[in-house]
Amino acid sequence: MSSNYKDLQLEDEKVFKDPVHSYVHVTDQVIWDLIKTKEFQRLRRIKQLGTLYFAFPSAEHSRFTHSLGVYEIVRKIVENFSQYDEWDNDDRILALSAALLHDVGHGPFSHSFEQIFNTDHEMYTKEIILGNTEINSVLKRVSEDFPEEVASVISHTHKNKLVVSMISSQIDADRMDYLQRDSYFTGVEYGKFDIDRLLRVMIPSKNEVLIKESGMHAVEDYLMSRYQMYWQIYFHPVSRGGEVLLTLIFKRAKELYESGYEFKQPPKYLIPFFEDRETVHDYLILDETIMNFYLQEWTGEMDDVLSELADRFVNRKLFKFVPFYDGFLTKLEFETLFEKAGIDPEYNLFTDRYSDMPYDYDRPGSKRQPIHLLKKNGEIREISEVSEIIEAITGLHRKDAKLYYPKEKVLNIKDDTIRTKILNLLNELS
Amino acid sequence: MSSNYKDLQLEDEKVFKDPVHSYVHVTDQVIWDLIKTKEFQRLRRIKQLGTLYFAFPSAEHSRFTHSLGVYEIVRKIVENFSQYDEWDNDDRILALSAALLHDVGHGPFSHSFEQIFNTDHEMYTKEIILGNTEINSVLKRVSEDFPEEVASVISHTHKNKLVVSMISSQIDADRMDYLQRDSYFTGVEYGKFDIDRLLRVMIPSKNEVLIKESGMHAVEDYLMSRYQMYWQIYFHPVSRGGEVLLTLIFKRAKELYESGYEFKQPPKYLIPFFEDRETVHDYLILDETIMNFYLQEWTGEMDDVLSELADRFVNRKLFKFVPFYDGFLTKLEFETLFEKAGIDPEYNLFTDRYSDMPYDYDRPGSKRQPIHLLKKNGEIREISEVSEIIEAITGLHRKDAKLYYPKEKVLNIKDDTIRTKILNLLNELS
Amino acid sequence: MSSNYKDLQLEDEKVFKDPVHSYVHVTDQVIWDLIKTKEFQRLRRIKQLGTLYFAFPSAEHSRFTHSLGVYEIVRKIVENFSQYDEWDNDDRILALSAALLHDVGHGPFSHSFEQIFNTDHEMYTKEIILGNTEINSVLKRVSEDFPEEVASVISHTHKNKLVVSMISSQIDADRMDYLQRDSYFTGVEYGKFDIDRLLRVMIPSKNEVLIKESGMHAVEDYLMSRYQMYWQIYFHPVSRGGEVLLTLIFKRAKELYESGYEFKQPPKYLIPFFEDRETVHDYLILDETIMNFYLQEWTGEMDDVLSELADRFVNRKLFKFVPFYDGFLTKLEFETLFEKAGIDPEYNLFTDRYSDMPYDYDRPGSKRQPIHLLKKNGEIREISEVSEIIEAITGLHRKDAKLYYPKEKVLNIKDDTIRTKILNLLNELS
Amino acid sequence: MSSNYKDLQLEDEKVFKDPVHSYVHVTDQVIWDLIKTKEFQRLRRIKQLGTLYFAFPSAEHSRFTHSLGVYEIVRKIVENFSQYDEWDNDDRILALSAALLHDVGHGPFSHSFEQIFNTDHEMYTKEIILGNTEINSVLKRVSEDFPEEVASVISHTHKNKLVVSMISSQIDADRMDYLQRDSYFTGVEYGKFDIDRLLRVMIPSKNEVLIKESGMHAVEDYLMSRYQMYWQIYFHPVSRGGEVLLTLIFKRAKELYESGYEFKQPPKYLIPFFEDRETVHDYLILDETIMNFYLQEWTGEMDDVLSELADRFVNRKLFKFVPFYDGFLTKLEFETLFEKAGIDPEYNLFTDRYSDMPYDYDRPGSKRQPIHLLKKNGEIREISEVSEIIEAITGLHRKDAKLYYPKEKVLNIKDDTIRTKILNLLNELS
Repeated sequence: MSSNYKDLQLEDEKVFKDPVHSYVHVTDQVIWDLIKTKEFQRLRRIKQLGTLYFAFPSAEHSRFTHSLGVYEIVRKIVENFSQYDEWDNDDRILALSAALLHDVGHGPFSHSFEQIFNTDHEMYTKEIILGNTEINSVLKRVSEDFPEEVASVISHTHKNKLVVSMISSQIDADRMDYLQRDSYFTGVEYGKFDIDRLLRVMIPSKNEVLIKESGMHAVEDYLMSRYQMYWQIYFHPVSRGGEVLLTLIFKRAKELYESGYEFKQPPKYLIPFFEDRETVHDYLILDETIMNFYLQEWTGEMDDVLSELADRFVNRKLFKFVPFYDGFLTKLEFETLFEKAGIDPEYNLFTDRYSDMPYDYDRPGSKRQPIHLLKKNGEIREISEVSEIIEAITGLHRKDAKLYYPKEKVLNIKDDTIRTKILNLLNELS
Repeated sequence: MSSNYKDLQLEDEKVFKDPVHSYVHVTDQVIWDLIKTKEFQRLRRIKQLGTLYFAFPSAEHSRFTHSLGVYEIVRKIVENFSQYDEWDNDDRILALSAALLHDVGHGPFSHSFEQIFNTDHEMYTKEIILGNTEINSVLKRVSEDFPEEVASVISHTHKNKLVVSMISSQIDADRMDYLQRDSYFTGVEYGKFDIDRLLRVMIPSKNEVLIKESGMHAVEDYLMSRYQMYWQIYFHPVSRGGEVLLTLIFKRAKELYESGYEFKQPPKYLIPFFEDRETVHDYLILDETIMNFYLQEWTGEMDDVLSELADRFVNRKLFKFVPFYDGFLTKLEFETLFEKAGIDPEYNLFTDRYSDMPYDYDRPGSKRQPIHLLKKNGEIREISEVSEIIEAITGLHRKDAKLYYPKEKVLNIKDDTIRTKILNLLNELS
Repeated sequence: MSSNYKDLQLEDEKVFKDPVHSYVHVTDQVIWDLIKTKEFQRLRRIKQLGTLYFAFPSAEHSRFTHSLGVYEIVRKIVENFSQYDEWDNDDRILALSAALLHDVGHGPFSHSFEQIFNTDHEMYTKEIILGNTEINSVLKRVSEDFPEEVASVISHTHKNKLVVSMISSQIDADRMDYLQRDSYFTGVEYGKFDIDRLLRVMIPSKNEVLIKESGMHAVEDYLMSRYQMYWQIYFHPVSRGGEVLLTLIFKRAKELYESGYEFKQPPKYLIPFFEDRETVHDYLILDETIMNFYLQEWTGEMDDVLSELADRFVNRKLFKFVPFYDGFLTKLEFETLFEKAGIDPEYNLFTDRYSDMPYDYDRPGSKRQPIHLLKKNGEIREISEVSEIIEAITGLHRKDAKLYYPKEKVLNIKDDTIRTKILNLLNELS
Repeated sequence: MSSNYKDLQLEDEKVFKDPVHSYVHVTDQVIWDLIKTKEFQRLRRIKQLGTLYFAFPSAEHSRFTHSLGVYEIVRKIVENFSQYDEWDNDDRILALSAALLHDVGHGPFSHSFEQIFNTDHEMYTKEIILGNTEINSVLKRVSEDFPEEVASVISHTHKNKLVVSMISSQIDADRMDYLQRDSYFTGVEYGKFDIDRLLRVMIPSKNEVLIKESGMHAVEDYLMSRYQMYWQIYFHPVSRGGEVLLTLIFKRAKELYESGYEFKQPPKYLIPFFEDRETVHDYLILDETIMNFYLQEWTGEMDDVLSELADRFVNRKLFKFVPFYDGFLTKLEFETLFEKAGIDPEYNLFTDRYSDMPYDYDRPGSKRQPIHLLKKNGEIREISEVSEIIEAITGLHRKDAKLYYPKEKVLNIKDDTIRTKILNLLNELS
């Protein structure tokens, strides 16, 4: 019977050694079976931080260990919650499954890939959970509608807002794991905050995870960690330089395919994407092994644009960058000068923009719940009303942009006037 | 000759194992001789964080290790600076000595002690350096006016503003050490920031230590660490409850002495302070051994007020506290009610106020220099003009206050009306 | 009823922040009440590592935090054990109380003090638990014979050998805490081992804590940590140089007292010990505050021997030392030469010997149980039969000795022949 | 001129953030140019620990970061050595280059690959350094014979034994980095030792790096770390189960190729290896991208043996294992029974043997120098003559073996007698 399977405990607890949480503990048969599926194992072949290893060489960890980490945090939250009436332990396996699977739809180099191929990892997470997959089979053994339930927790539409907020909110298990983990594997201090303390001050309520007022400072620290990680790590321009190359590479490959170009090694697993007719199974085949294989093959392609860009990516010959404040006019100036110098601006100039809010609960369209404090007298307050420091940073919407270009090509421009003009423009920006 | 002594190197480098900096390295004879003086060794007998061990039991580290730590940070800064023309290596031993000695005038439980006895540890630092001490003898061997030079660095009056800013500014070696150290010994994460990174982005200029613009985020992280440490650790109300008791104890002891009370064990080393005629040598005798000895003796004194307060301190029977927002009126209400109940408000009620600014460079009267960034193009900018997050928090002047009282005495008030009134008032506040 | 008190849970769990275990959790009223007793609070005034701060300046932590740590480890073991039939949860509060109180009889500078005054901290632990103390009152509220039970666990005589082995065996909570803690506070890596792993492989049996065979390597690592901590930290000759001074000081003070010497400040709290008539209450008054107070006072005594030794201790002017391999003959040579030079050998020469076995289960007279592995097939094996590396080190009984002497006095000997002879002898030894 | 290039310093020091060493510092143009070569960048695509991620999921770090780490350690050693006459700073760039490049010949899954294809990563390291590569071009700019010098340091044949011992000895930069690094990335404590201390006690001599006698305990700790890492991590049977599958896969693929089998996707980059005519350039193309691509493709091959084994590897369906003590007879018994049951023993049974010596200096044929201590009096002693603990473990030659098999196939054997016989045999072994 399904209900038996839902509650089935492993004879021996299984553990994974993990540097962030010391150990990840698995006691449920459902979770163990999910981990063993090929769709979940595939996450070992997708880096958590894409091209960040270009900037932080040791950032080589996978989405597999992150997914285990999110699961482990939710497991600990549930363990704490079991002493409260507000928590219904019947939701345990739902929360654990959603935590484990929340990133299962990620593909290789999602950021650039999605831009060119109009895919969406959140949609794929849903399709993998609901489609004809090993994960779906495991979940169905719990109950017929269990896959749908898990998917709707991940997409914020499940009616149980408490479980949703554990997986996805301003202070969810996802963020709590990745800040710590990415901090550990890059070797920086910024992402460290007192996770033990945060877990201790979390309280279940009907609609969300509340934070005991005494935990306010721990939340402040966590939000500042998050802010620092974004600006120091995730937005690192060297890493984004890798994404820039990938975006141009995918764009060129698609363009070539559409123009009938004959690849030396036809990228058969990408063709459904070129033709915009991919299925979830086409998507699941893609991982960094496949993608890197094509990228390495393309270093030997006949098309100079593609082979040069691929060589740049594979052998880390990145574009240089300058801060780029305004927009259209200057970019146009560069484009005109590049064309005059015989350098195709389409594949040699790229503007990369990014922004973040340290605490973004009231961004229009934000699906994430704000952080609520529970006072001793039972009153509930949104945190920026109570914390002066969070109030101070709530309004901030920091933005930045960089212009990327191939430095050695600029230096090699024969025409002195054009080269000097470009170099002067670049100098002004930096 | 003095100049020889100034540059004299130890035959073998000496090292101290240190959990924060891994090792503290000593190569100069002057530094080694300073460490061996009895005035510096005395710092082993004064806790870095006073009564904080009441709240964080493991905060038992001394000012001795902190002083070594500040020295070690300055040693590393100087090592980095030696590659710059702006740094005159002739100031090396001045910077190192000032770093080592910056806290040498601290006494036991400075906070409460200074309040009652009108002493000032900064003044004593100066007197110890300039007076008839072993430290003074060592410094004089460098040159006749060297003690004066070291003292003036510590008191911000030395003409070499660069050296002053290494020891005392918004981002000085003192703060960099104590945030890390206090974090380590209390066991919290809040005080951790990337000190290696900060040291790498520090650049000497004529008037101050500048921060390379690329290090802005590291400074943001450091300032947030500082903010968190103040509100989570240094202002912890349980620890301040220890200070409250000490303040009342010192006040009572002084009052008793002045009224001719006969102590069972006359506190001979405090008498110069009671009589306001203390010398630097009287001050140097005081340390936590002496002070705790009297506190322990006083648990057996005949005066009930003193013995009760001493017993509370020694055996950690702290007052309770409630947040205390307004001021005079409520306090008066409590006082009136306490008097009616036969509880002396003078020794049973205490309001403790504290405040801090996360980044306080423009506080009127602040002696500390602001933090200046050095841009690639050579421009210098005050950091809050560049960092949005620092700008956001610069205005903040956070304050708090607590009212302390002996809970069990309140609960034991016989008169139901008065007891209930007090309990209601306390309840309203909490 | 007592049984109610035994099981009484605190309304809100109390926690202590702790750098080693992250948090120490208290949920039992009994434990909370024990922590609040004055005898337990007294442990804050006794350093865990005595004079080790002479060698490792940051080793300033107290027996208070260690005692909490041992309690926390036992609490975790009990939590794990609760799933096994072999564990009787009725023994929970016994195990926790014994863990918390196992060191309560330690006094200031136990090592040297016990040598001169023939006291024994284990005996005092028993007397404090059984005598007229606050601790005894709390324990008695559990049941009339509960103090006796707790005391007998600590003295290895309790019939429940499983509980005894948790507190005191080759791999007990005491050692597991102090290795980690002393490592943390000195700043060395040697004492670190995988405590999470060890806790996971511990299994209760009727007579002892067993180790799952799969945990054998973790035990190897723990034993090597222990070995390293002894030889790198605990036996550090600079630290033992502090103990040497204390031993000579106590000896001299006692000698002076017995000879009718008039102390400027009569050391009233030591007199019962001088007269060999001390009670447990005399003992409880002693702590490092009292002892350091006398040591500091004695720097000003008229007796030159005492004041010089006290000055050496207070201001860290330690004796030098050389390795000292054989025994009687050389020591005699030194003594003769010292006497000729007018230096009293009794207070200027000291031989310090120490030894340790990395794994000492079969030492004749050892009260500690060996470590037993539980194989998958249920077989039980003593660990050195299975682990080659433990077998290899089991036989080792490493010894060392040092000879301490005041270097500057030797250098100041006027008689060239004698001075040279002594220096040559010292040189031969080093 | 070449000599200029050898000493050429970068205008701005470059740094890599690194979790193990905090930062890796590069100041030499030669080193910077070597890092940028495609052969060095290729190391990003080869995991440091091969299939260990099957057992420790977070062990995903590459040989690239390890190589930088070894370089950084040697850089620090050289910095320390510069104060000694025994060190000739002319060897600096030789030591740094050899450190950086010592592993450049490693390929994907070296262990299994080398077994089947008779390749040797040490030989390829040499060929990459001496052959027609970007690395060779950079090295040649130093001097014509510089590539040969670097190669001979790595192969222990360089006449400068001091530099050789820095890169490869019982206590070399290679081991010091990988123990710490593998410990960090797996999340275990075993590999931690006091590297700062070890660096401080290293002294250059004509023929080797000596260890000051006072550092003996740090070496003991390091050797025990190494022992623990081998038995706890590197020999983990789950990880070796991955290697077992790879060995069988490579063997099958080669067999198929030799038998004329038509691969759906012909593994063109492996064909030179199948035909035993590979060049260094064929070798350099191989990395984990290529290898994993074939492994993933082979899950869809027509040959059942290959596709099943590939599926097991890609989706982590590992063989089970039992301890396997004796040899021939039992293995034969299993083989006979497997054949009777219709399971091909050649691809379904595998014996894996491994062994290590904690300190193996005197193993016949060992190219590694023993560890020598330098006593204060200048005497040099092999460490096991002085350290009892190292003497105790020097003789140990620990061995182990496991038998791997597909558990579910055994359970599915229809013939009850055969199945039971096999299960009984397995049970006896475990």
